[in-house]
Amino acid sequence: MNQKLQRLQSLLKDVTNLNNASALLGWDQQTYMPPGGAAARAEQLATLEKLAHQLFTTDEIGQLLADLADAGFEYDSDEAALVRVARREYDLARKLPPALVEEMSRTFSLAQQIWQKARAEKDFSQFQDILAKIVDLNIQAAEAYGYDDNIYDALLNQFEPGMKTAEVDAVFNQLKAELVPLVQAISAKKETVDDSPLRQNFDEQAQWDFGLIPLRAIGFDFERGRQDKSAHPFTTSFSVNDVRVTTRVYKDQFATAIFGTLHEGGHALYEQGSAAELDGTMLAGGTSLGVHESQSRLWENVVGRSRAFWQFYYPRLQEFFPAQLGQVSLDDFYRAINRVEPSFIRVEADEVTYNLHIFLRFELEQELLTGRLAVADLPAAWNAKMQSYLGVTPPDDSQGVLQDIHWSGGMMGYFPTYTLGNVMSLQFYNRALADIPDLPEQFARGEFGALLGWFREHIHRHGRKYTATELIRRTTGDDGIKAGPYLAYIRQKYSDIYGLGE
Amino acid sequence: MNQKLQRLQSLLKDVTNLNNASALLGWDQQTYMPPGGAAARAEQLATLEKLAHQLFTTDEIGQLLADLADAGFEYDSDEAALVRVARREYDLARKLPPALVEEMSRTFSLAQQIWQKARAEKDFSQFQDILAKIVDLNIQAAEAYGYDDNIYDALLNQFEPGMKTAEVDAVFNQLKAELVPLVQAISAKKETVDDSPLRQNFDEQAQWDFGLIPLRAIGFDFERGRQDKSAHPFTTSFSVNDVRVTTRVYKDQFATAIFGTLHEGGHALYEQGSAAELDGTMLAGGTSLGVHESQSRLWENVVGRSRAFWQFYYPRLQEFFPAQLGQVSLDDFYRAINRVEPSFIRVEADEVTYNLHIFLRFELEQELLTGRLAVADLPAAWNAKMQSYLGVTPPDDSQGVLQDIHWSGGMMGYFPTYTLGNVMSLQFYNRALADIPDLPEQFARGEFGALLGWFREHIHRHGRKYTATELIRRTTGDDGIKAGPYLAYIRQKYSDIYGLGE
Repeated sequence: MNQKLQRLQSLLKDVTNLNNASALLGWDQQTYMPPGGAAARAEQLATLEKLAHQLFTTDEIGQLLADLADAGFEYDSDEAALVRVARREYDLARKLPPALVEEMSRTFSLAQQIWQKARAEKDFSQFQDILAKIVDLNIQAAEAYGYDDNIYDALLNQFEPGMKTAEVDAVFNQLKAELVPLVQAISAKKETVDDSPLRQNFDEQAQWDFGLIPLRAIGFDFERGRQDKSAHPFTTSFSVNDVRVTTRVYKDQFATAIFGTLHEGGHALYEQGSAAELDGTMLAGGTSLGVHESQSRLWENVVGRSRAFWQFYYPRLQEFFPAQLGQVSLDDFYRAINRVEPSFIRVEADEVTYNLHIFLRFELEQELLTGRLAVADLPAAWNAKMQSYLGVTPPDDSQGVLQDIHWSGGMMGYFPTYTLGNVMSLQFYNRALADIPDLPEQFARGEFGALLGWFREHIHRHGRKYTATELIRRTTGDDGIKAGPYLAYIRQKYSDIYGLGE
Repeated sequence: MNQKLQRLQSLLKDVTNLNNASALLGWDQQTYMPPGGAAARAEQLATLEKLAHQLFTTDEIGQLLADLADAGFEYDSDEAALVRVARREYDLARKLPPALVEEMSRTFSLAQQIWQKARAEKDFSQFQDILAKIVDLNIQAAEAYGYDDNIYDALLNQFEPGMKTAEVDAVFNQLKAELVPLVQAISAKKETVDDSPLRQNFDEQAQWDFGLIPLRAIGFDFERGRQDKSAHPFTTSFSVNDVRVTTRVYKDQFATAIFGTLHEGGHALYEQGSAAELDGTMLAGGTSLGVHESQSRLWENVVGRSRAFWQFYYPRLQEFFPAQLGQVSLDDFYRAINRVEPSFIRVEADEVTYNLHIFLRFELEQELLTGRLAVADLPAAWNAKMQSYLGVTPPDDSQGVLQDIHWSGGMMGYFPTYTLGNVMSLQFYNRALADIPDLPEQFARGEFGALLGWFREHIHRHGRKYTATELIRRTTGDDGIKAGPYLAYIRQKYSDIYGLGE
């Protein structure tokens, strides 16, 4: 049995190395690649992904996984987890024909370049044809994966293993029932919070330099990672010891860089936190996108937009920007960074309306995939839903349907994981707070080690060994994802800021 | 036959894509990778190179190459050239056992990290063991390649196909006979040239910014490439349309950045100049390291250190550095950048003594490979030869035996190609000058398009279709590499600068 395990590990190592190489090619594509490199890069990625797929989907690996399923490894052992996770991935990968995998890779890589140009030129029509192809490829993939009654289940399962569209619907409906009236109540008192201090002229280099301070303080290890700039912030990793984040800096929007940095930093802490012995195996990294997002949005919002965090950092920030913030009180700054206002761009949305952007995408994706909506009609449908959920209409497609990178990268079924992450983050955080009641006091002293240590212990070190639901059960005792803690957090924080019920 | 050709092209495309992906991983390793990423990177490169080797050395490709050898393609066609070049590479690659290829890749990748630390700490002993392994792996590779009577032939052939050690000896001996007395004559008049103006305090960002101006002017296309910083400057490419150079900037050594930039720029012009239809095939890129070096050293020295070049750029440079250079005449500057003085570092050596650094490495490599010299005795042997050829002894190993990246990357048999490039560059340039007699007047107007056009037409566009000797024959009519033109150029230029024979 040991020999079979070693053989499996050795075969999977090549697959992991190919995937990590692909991830570096993707990082470079978004950060440093010159424009001329795009076509060749698409070909390179297509080859790497084709080979990774070929090497992973061999009959030999199938046989090894079958043999090792009964090997008697303890459920919590790395060996059992490797066989479980590889089995799940193998079953998914075997269902996609190699020709489809290669076509998806090439299409998605080219689509990113087309999308970048279309977005820059605010012109959806440039992107329409290749998006239609992307929808079609996703339908082909979903059919190949198989599903019971909802095609969306097959795609969601890639990002949030085991989660059903119906479960998402249930959580989202509970959220909607409370968040939509909350946003309306806040809108009625919108003059309560002024965020104009955040929209002054902030030197870009100074913003970058300031952002590195909390990024380091929350525990991002620059010996095992780096931060660069890109059009759309992201986190990627090629090893537990090489985890990279990106951010973007806008001169006149202070919140973009700092909260982008904390968000990606949260993802990166998770990636850097896998146990050392998982490095280079299929078990390193985050177990699902929802759990990943629970980490990023925890550090961005629950920590990074808390009063305690800025009790420590605001005086330092004022030293960076005395002219802009010297006369702005901590309380006014805290309220400004938590201002709730319907707006166009998801990644810059406040904590509350953010979820409405997700509901919109979740619904539009389902309509596209079931053919109820044609790609040509997507911008109009997008704008109509924006009006309906948020009461605003994007002035152009770059601030509407073209804003996100996901579809250009071929990813459909991904967006709901953001809000699932919001929800999970509070399930985890409440448990951490029960274990370490003085966390906010620690934040106010610029100390984040205890919170990071809690996540390292309960979530990060496990890598992909346990599913999201298993992690929730192990850490909180809840039997699955629950909207309650998140809603209670939102209710309390924003009632306080906006004086609701007063 | 057409079907067989298409099949061959399709199989080779995956190999090329893997190799281009490896090149990006290597670029990242030298530019942006955090220290922690090294071990995983070595594993990733080992996998990519193992797979490229496996995919390239199949029996099927061997059969296709055999079948296509008699296909009747015209010698000058891309098809015939692809079969010729692939055949040559295939024969080399088949001779290396896959286990040796993987061990070399892993060893060389780790060795680079060890070398960087050893160099930083000026401590050869840290590098000694892995260098001994590198020598041994090179011996194993040479034995696997096979050779007639000189083991060095087998390694040289990897970088300068078809060239024999005996030919190199002949050219080097002719050079030595004239260059050694020349350096002595110059040393007797060393007070003639003062290069202290180059060793003032030059702002690093301003040096970087200035260097981009001539880099762009000689024709480097930033839409299809970029420049970054690294410890040791290099050029790499992942496509005809994605060619990257690096440079390094020292505050107190003005010559390092600008001439490094022009040197790598010369390599890059060659890589960017392959015909578009060769992109993604085995025929894109430079045909040998000697020809590659003929391009880099032409732009660095024959153009970049010419009086005409600086007639145009010196007034612009003075605007960047008025305090440092405002009072230095063009003539004094021209003499300063062409100062000849025995020194420790090859890449910063002047045009004349540079070749002596090469003779030293060429001889030491042969002694290591034949066992006449033990790795433990290398620093002493290095220093003794430095004293004998150049009359100086490095103060520590970082300025001696540890200065170059090549051995840490596993490359032995590579160094002689630098001086071969010097020699070829004048064979080519003299022909270009015969075709376009006013080249120096063009340089003095900041115009380099005609020279680049000449190289595009006669050298660059062919990629790897012709060997160095074929290119020399086609462009110059000479029957091979000849030291005469280079020696005449050196003699005239430096007699003028140093007033020799006056």
